[in-house]
Amino acid sequence: MAKSAPNQRRATVRDVAALAGVSPGTVSKALNGTGQISETTRSRIEAAAEVLDFRPNELARSVFERRSYTVGVITTDSFERFSVPVMLGAEDALGAGRISAFLCDARDDPIRERHYIDVLLGRRVDGIIVTGRSSNPRSPIQVDKSIPVIYALTPSTDPDDCSIVVDDVSAGRLAGEHLVGLGRRNIAHITGPRSFNAVNERAQGLVAALAPAGLQVAGEILYGGWTEAWGRQATQILLRSRPDVDAIYCGSDLIARGVSDALREAGRVVPKDVALVGTDNWALIAEGARPPLTSVDMGLADVGRLAAQRLLEAIDGVRHSGTELVPCHLVLRASTESPEGMIAAL
Amino acid sequence: MAKSAPNQRRATVRDVAALAGVSPGTVSKALNGTGQISETTRSRIEAAAEVLDFRPNELARSVFERRSYTVGVITTDSFERFSVPVMLGAEDALGAGRISAFLCDARDDPIRERHYIDVLLGRRVDGIIVTGRSSNPRSPIQVDKSIPVIYALTPSTDPDDCSIVVDDVSAGRLAGEHLVGLGRRNIAHITGPRSFNAVNERAQGLVAALAPAGLQVAGEILYGGWTEAWGRQATQILLRSRPDVDAIYCGSDLIARGVSDALREAGRVVPKDVALVGTDNWALIAEGARPPLTSVDMGLADVGRLAAQRLLEAIDGVRHSGTELVPCHLVLRASTESPEGMIAAL
Repeated sequence: MAKSAPNQRRATVRDVAALAGVSPGTVSKALNGTGQISETTRSRIEAAAEVLDFRPNELARSVFERRSYTVGVITTDSFERFSVPVMLGAEDALGAGRISAFLCDARDDPIRERHYIDVLLGRRVDGIIVTGRSSNPRSPIQVDKSIPVIYALTPSTDPDDCSIVVDDVSAGRLAGEHLVGLGRRNIAHITGPRSFNAVNERAQGLVAALAPAGLQVAGEILYGGWTEAWGRQATQILLRSRPDVDAIYCGSDLIARGVSDALREAGRVVPKDVALVGTDNWALIAEGARPPLTSVDMGLADVGRLAAQRLLEAIDGVRHSGTELVPCHLVLRASTESPEGMIAAL
Repeated sequence: MAKSAPNQRRATVRDVAALAGVSPGTVSKALNGTGQISETTRSRIEAAAEVLDFRPNELARSVFERRSYTVGVITTDSFERFSVPVMLGAEDALGAGRISAFLCDARDDPIRERHYIDVLLGRRVDGIIVTGRSSNPRSPIQVDKSIPVIYALTPSTDPDDCSIVVDDVSAGRLAGEHLVGLGRRNIAHITGPRSFNAVNERAQGLVAALAPAGLQVAGEILYGGWTEAWGRQATQILLRSRPDVDAIYCGSDLIARGVSDALREAGRVVPKDVALVGTDNWALIAEGARPPLTSVDMGLADVGRLAAQRLLEAIDGVRHSGTELVPCHLVLRASTESPEGMIAAL
């Protein structure tokens, strides 16, 4: 350990002015591109700024403009599987650095959340994105109406707020249409807890996709945990009640992994005997399965991008309200066969 | 979509001063707790600040103090499995909001990284934490020596820099000592690519733990990918060359998952026939295995906390240099048996 000298002082506008032999106001004009300055003076100032490694002070600019060019992102899920893609999408849309994001991890704790909101307001953020781990609505955060807030993934219970969420009905519909298109007739559904909106909406989408083919979900819809163990257990139940099952749509990739293992151990071949579709398109899980899993991608990065776009619009005075749905898409892997039409088209 | 009125102007020190009937300087003194002010004046000012929902402007304070109370965190791994726990540990240590972190995702792209460094310098961060996805050293970021930088998880190639890394030798040693303690004699090792320092150090730790018991690693150390598929394939190779294997230490939990599946399919019971230890303690993977996996936890949150602590010290003028190792710890689950001594001690 070495005790070093205090940090070297950074160059200021005054230092640049002294070196260039002009007033600080002239430096400011030159670097901001405002006012009338001769080309030689401008060059001299730019050279002085270069020599001194002077960087225009964004903090000072922020105070002047009453804008901080920062936004806050508050999540409840400790930046895990769901909020990270939302955040990366938002980062893309915030313009790669023109606006920077403060990330705050509320860890499902209302006191942490309140604390972070106060920190963000103290730092004069231009707006706040609130995200979480489920699509169940949450009560709005308490901030002055002058601060734009967008809810991403987890909508606000206040219909006047702007919320960007996954279209979970489309997830079930895409899976159902794909399996019907493959000629499957006995399509079962193994999913997560009934207390999740996403669970109910995916089931609803699946039912809607089967109806035009004159089909219903095979057996009872099996609601349980978001785990591999539940996937294995539900498969035992399903194979006893509906041994004729020829396709299963799962509410998550982890559940589908459990289903895949249980089918193999029961001597059922995927996809020949039973086609299998997961949800999340979580590459590590979907690609590690035998065979790799076809899965519904929830477009979380798109949710983040749209949320950031709506936030920027709100900061500029154009506010949206209500809930916008972002559609899912299907990623094909070996756990479902290609529909004959697709093969014919190749 | 509704076009709303421009944001309502936030209250300033001037507004508070006008309402309280004092000068702005007096407001500033009262709110900062400096200078001589009567108790009645202070109360009047505090009441005015409360009425106007005035928040002291942290940006203005930052400009005045030449400190921004912000730090930058740059990662190369898109805030995935490794950098997120490091980041959360750092957030804890940064004092829950007194200092806020700007997170920048360089996505393994040197141009994005340079861009973000410039953004952070423009925002006058007090320091930078650089993190990544592997323990292989990286070249230092190019910033003025006056800005403290700490490398977390991924060390700097410059020995004068301060790097906080996982003690990967301890990972292999803990696994080896645990398996030897269980009375296992034929302990194999299935791990990731030889190009990773962590892979070589974990192997080295395992070898060191077996030596005092007069043991060597059973068969060749099997180097491959970080995948379940490699775990399955390596198990086939191992069971042919060393059918007497009674324990396997794996370089990651995903590899261990593949090993676990292949052992079950080969009729070997875990842990009775073969005890199994993974690395990462990635709960979702380790707990989903049958049986759940004993695993070495790399203490990533501790790495983040220590990095943030060293950064705060450096900001205060006390700079460390060199590499500090953070020890791993073992998390016991059902894939290894408890040593008899532990059971006797219960």
